[in-house]
Parts: sequence; structure tokens; C-alpha cells
Amino acid sequence: MFPKRFNAGGIEAGISRKKAKKDIAVFYSEVPAQCAAMFTNNLVKAAPVLLSQKHIDIVPHVRAVVANSGCANACTGRRGLRDAERMCEITASRWGVSTEEVLVASTGVIGQFLPMDNIDTGITDLIHAMRAKKGNPVDAAAAILTTDTVVKVAQAAIIAGGKKVTIWGCAKGSGMIHPDLGIPHATMLAFILTDAAIERGLLEEALVVAADNSFNCISVDGDTSTNDSVFVLANGAAANPLITRPGRDLAAFSVALQKVCLELSKKIVLDGEGATKLAEIEVRGAADDADARKIASVIATSPLVKTALFGNDANWGRILAACGRAGVAFEPQNVSISIGGMIVAENGMAKKFSEQRAKRLLSKKNVRIVVDLRKGGGRAVYYTCDFSFDYVKINASYRS
Amino acid sequence: MFPKRFNAGGIEAGISRKKAKKDIAVFYSEVPAQCAAMFTNNLVKAAPVLLSQKHIDIVPHVRAVVANSGCANACTGRRGLRDAERMCEITASRWGVSTEEVLVASTGVIGQFLPMDNIDTGITDLIHAMRAKKGNPVDAAAAILTTDTVVKVAQAAIIAGGKKVTIWGCAKGSGMIHPDLGIPHATMLAFILTDAAIERGLLEEALVVAADNSFNCISVDGDTSTNDSVFVLANGAAANPLITRPGRDLAAFSVALQKVCLELSKKIVLDGEGATKLAEIEVRGAADDADARKIASVIATSPLVKTALFGNDANWGRILAACGRAGVAFEPQNVSISIGGMIVAENGMAKKFSEQRAKRLLSKKNVRIVVDLRKGGGRAVYYTCDFSFDYVKINASYRS
Repeated sequence: MFPKRFNAGGIEAGISRKKAKKDIAVFYSEVPAQCAAMFTNNLVKAAPVLLSQKHIDIVPHVRAVVANSGCANACTGRRGLRDAERMCEITASRWGVSTEEVLVASTGVIGQFLPMDNIDTGITDLIHAMRAKKGNPVDAAAAILTTDTVVKVAQAAIIAGGKKVTIWGCAKGSGMIHPDLGIPHATMLAFILTDAAIERGLLEEALVVAADNSFNCISVDGDTSTNDSVFVLANGAAANPLITRPGRDLAAFSVALQKVCLELSKKIVLDGEGATKLAEIEVRGAADDADARKIASVIATSPLVKTALFGNDANWGRILAACGRAGVAFEPQNVSISIGGMIVAENGMAKKFSEQRAKRLLSKKNVRIVVDLRKGGGRAVYYTCDFSFDYVKINASYRS
Repeated sequence: MFPKRFNAGGIEAGISRKKAKKDIAVFYSEVPAQCAAMFTNNLVKAAPVLLSQKHIDIVPHVRAVVANSGCANACTGRRGLRDAERMCEITASRWGVSTEEVLVASTGVIGQFLPMDNIDTGITDLIHAMRAKKGNPVDAAAAILTTDTVVKVAQAAIIAGGKKVTIWGCAKGSGMIHPDLGIPHATMLAFILTDAAIERGLLEEALVVAADNSFNCISVDGDTSTNDSVFVLANGAAANPLITRPGRDLAAFSVALQKVCLELSKKIVLDGEGATKLAEIEVRGAADDADARKIASVIATSPLVKTALFGNDANWGRILAACGRAGVAFEPQNVSISIGGMIVAENGMAKKFSEQRAKRLLSKKNVRIVVDLRKGGGRAVYYTCDFSFDYVKINASYRS
């Protein structure tokens, strides 16, 4: 189920000296595509982020996105910007489109320059293969990975105006994950392709809402990257009636887009560096949604909560302590906390529970923690993973 | 060098089932002492914090502080408050002072009740020994420890008005350490005793300044505790002329107090859970001190920076990425970063450096990282430790 008239592939260009893997991906639309994108809110933005922002501001549509792993091309100054531009130029010339119609994304080590010879050969060979119909979207999804252990793909289809519209996306995590995406703004990278016919403004709005309820609600380590980027390309090849205003088609498309974004987000968290489980942190009963989100975010990033999750330890006291430092007003004595559906604290105090059952619930691959402040109607959900020995192992020697 | 007419001791009362160690400490002044204290700003405050705040508000002076490790008496509702009060009552009655003249502090697991029989027997036996001149301050310093591996004591002496004035303090860390102390408001606990004669208002001011430049600038894991508390007792036994206004004596006292607080703070960080080194993060050249502090705090709590520190990896890109998400305006292309005096990044980009030398500098027990934003005169220092396998090990099974 791949959207019509899109083409995607990946190749090994030898960017990282550390491991042999595919490291260049190209996503290509045979026809001009509407594009919406969001990039990191980190003040320190990588060269590909700066360049993609510029391109997207000046072109009415895009034709391709080129991405590499193994080197983030961040903190690389003017040379980095020239290298990013060169990636777009090479991609554009091989496809016969203009440089500005190509967007670019990078992920990997910060502060190193791209090996441009490898990049040039890699892109050229890849597009040559894609032109010969030998491009494989799964290779593209593999090429963007760094410390990720699995390929992350999600898809959805809807019927709009009698036509089948397909959405396909791939993403990578898996460290420096705490996206904070703005407009037009992760080293979370996500590439979403759809053959929907939809106006750019509505595509952007749909992406902002979808990202806010997916990518912006996940955390692996609380560190926001210099390279986080999400791209959605919509090329209209489904031939549905152009979506130009709110209505059933836009609603269906928005729901499907959010589903794809959320599935990719959960896959990123579950494959977070060293992660052994996915924890869904729901905060309800807050004064408002914003308060709920602040608290959920603090719980999701607390090293003490995350190590307890790794140890299958129902240490609800750490959860409540995290709530208390979120800068949100609530009454601690009203708070209840449940883990996997089992209440472990009520009225801000311990409730007798079976430690054995708690361990069993916590050792599942998916753990749901609900904190109820019993104050108002505010609610938010955050997705996080546990903090394991492997997280430390992976990150103590990432560069070397 | 222990201040005059103070008495301190520690005893094993069997509070924790997990390990045999001294777990009750009593600090006692033979004469009424001025007192200043700061407690956690966490909205979720443990019973001993709430009770000590109340006592300190109503009494002109205090006589004793009682503390226990092994149980935080946090999230324990009304029973917890009664238990905290009972700790004060027992201490007061054994010394023949009033309950309100006794302050209390606890540290350990959240959400469990104190074993009051053990507490009662422990306090009674300890004070009996202290009355027989068998109290040892080092035992008090040991009794407050939890996952700490070493006793933390610091001291200083000054001459005020021709008299020798002594300051002695002890503290504990070593997880859930990211104190955020307010007035009158840490499971960082610190007990500082001085025989200075000083007015309460000035003692409070001196403590606030000292804490702001010491306890409030350290982080082990970014988690602010429900129990953090710092107490300073000044009993005037040095017989120096009462310090009642700014001047040489107050200045000398304030400097000495800050020295003691900073030494205790660094000891807490170096003994942080799983820590192998102390990193001093200095941010300079910020628009103002507040901006510098925000950035230093984000660097000090970044899991990616802290794991790189553990791995002796000069990954300055993670440091710059952390700066970028601090919510502070600066120009990334002006930033320089040095590690142990060696510049690793300049103008926001990599500078050639010897990786071997960087590894050598990073493998020292004390690492100094300087980030210069080259924007203004703002400066701040934060103290943090590395994030090791042992941090995860210690915290994955803290309760059990």
C-alpha cells in the first residue's frame, strides 16, 4: 500500500565509518507535490533544517526529499550549508527538477562535515536505480536509521470523493528524542507520502494538529535535537476531488494522518535507545489540557521514573514527586495513580496492592500509567520508554 | 573543629529493612539557637517538611533537629504528619525542651509509614548516649545517608569581633537531586551548625544567598525531591559581638557559610548515584546571569551530555544542542566550548583537537566545561555528575 506516483529508495554510501548500513534515502514524486513540514524548535538548527525551511518558503511545491544518516551536518557553519545545498543540487539534477524543489534532512553525529564524495556517488547511484524501478521504500526507511534497531513504517488509507487515498510514512528515532516541533520546523525524522489531492494550507494545518498529538508527545531522553524534521508530501495522484475546505474528506484525511503519525511516534519510543518497553503516561483531571501536558511531560522525562520502569518497580512516589515539580497547581492529597489499570496510590497516599501483580503489569511491553489530579477536565497523554543499562552503553560511546 | 555547645550523634534503629546502618541523627544545641531553613519547592512536600516549616514559623529559636533515613515519610497523609510530630515530641521530651523547638527531616522511600516503635527506641537510646557525652557528629553525618557511599562533612572558621566562630555542616545526596529550595523551604538534606551570634534575619539572608550559589546549582538526575531541607542553627556560643547589620563580620560569616554549603554540594554531586566524576558547567558571555543559569541547568541535566561524560567522550555537539533547547536567545555561530581548558568548538563549529587528550581530560575526577556565548556579561556555574550503568542499577530496584 504505497501512494501512487511516489518512488522511494535507500542505498549504502559509506557515510558512517562506524557501521555498514544503508545511509542515503530519496523520496520522489513523479508530479509536483504539495508539502508541509515542521522542524525543530531548538535554537541550534542543523544546516539541512535551515535549507529546507528556506526552500519550502519559496517554492509552491516540491518534488523530492533527500536524507542521510551517520552525520547530522549540524554545527558545521557555512560549509555545512553549502554541503546541504549540494545534496539538493545533486538530487535535483539527477531527477531533472530544480534545486529548490528538493528538501533535505540529516541525522547522526553533530559537528562533523559530510563526506561529500560518498554522498554524491550514493545519491547518483540510488536515483539511477530508482529510475530503473529498482527503488524500495523499505530501503529508504532503513537508510534513515541511526541507533534504531528496527525499520518504522506506518500506513493508512481512506476513501475521499470516491477515490482511495493512501498515506505512507517512515520515521527514525531513537536518541535525542524529545521533539519540539514548530512551524515551518526533530533527530527524529519522519517522511510521510500521500497521494491525496489537498491544498497546502489545509495540509499544514492537518500536520500541525497531528504532530502536536503524536511527535510532540513523545520522549526518549528529554533531549531535543538540532535536526528533528517531519515532511508530508501530497501529490494528488489519487485523483480525489481537491480538498479545499473543512468537511468529511478533510476530517477523514486528518484522522488518517494523525493515525500514521501516532503509530510512527509509538514505534520511535518503543525502539528508543535501550528501551525495553513503551509507557503511556495519561494525566487527567487537571485544570486544563496544558497543565495536564506539563505534568505528563515531566513524568515522561524523569530519570527516576524511567529507571523504576526498567526495574518493573511500582515506585509511584517518584511519579507523584515528578508531578510536584511540574510548576502546576494541584492538591497532592487528591491524586490517584494507577499502573496497568491497578490503583497504587489514592488520595496522595499508598494503597495496598500486590507487588507481585504490579511487577507483572510493569513487565509488559506496553505499560499504561494514569495520574488523576481530580481537579478539572484537563487531559493529556505522553509516550515514553524506560531508562536501561543499554541507554547508557549506547550513549557513553556514541561518537567513537 | 566542632562549634561550641552543640552536640550531634547517630544510631541504628532498624528503619530500613534493606540494609543495616545508622539511620537516626540528632543535632542538639545546649542553648537556644537562631535558625534559618530552606525547604523543597516541590508542590508535593513530605510531612517532616510541612511540620518543620510550621515549627520554624512559630518559635523564636530552636534547640534540636531530628532526622531519619530509610523512609521519607512523604505521601503519607495525616498519619505521616502525626508521625513527624511524634518524632519531635520524643526528641523534645528526652532533652527537656518543647516540641516546637525541634525540627525534623526524613529521607528514603516515598509512600511508606515510619516504623514508630523503632523510631521511639532509636531516638531515646541516642539521646541517652548523647547526654552521656557519647554523641559523635560523624555518626550523625552517617545516619542521614541513603544511597550515599561516603559521609559528607564540611567546616570553616572565621574570627568575628576577636572571637573564633566555627561552622560545621553535614549533608546527604545522592539521588533525586536537583534541589529547588525556597523560603522557608530539598532528598538533599543538610544540617549546618555554627556557634556564631547572629540575628535570625541576617542568618536567613546569608543562607538564601549561600544556597542559591551551592545547593540550588547542583543536579544528579534533575528530579527535585519532596523532602529537600537545609537547616542552619546558630547558637551564639562563640560569644562574638551579635551580628546585627551588614559589615565585616557578616561578610566573613556569609563567605564562610557559602564555602561550607558549596563544599557539601560538590560532595553530594561527586557521590551522586553511580557518579564517577564531578563536572563543573560554567556558562559565560550570556545576556545576563539568569540566562546563563538556565543554559547551565539544561546542560547539567541532559542525559546525553551525562552519558557522554561517563564515556569520556568529548561530544560537544550534545552540549551545544542542550544550550539550544534552554529557551534562551543566543547566536549558535558565536559559541565556543572548552573541556578541561581545551577548546573543542569555536564559532559554533568543531575545532581540531586531540581526541586522546580529550579522553584524558574527561577521565579526571573533576571536569570543567566552559561554554562561552560571547554575547554579554552573564555567568553561572552548575555542578553535575555523569550518568553511569550504576545509576540505572541503583534506581531500577530502589524500593525492593
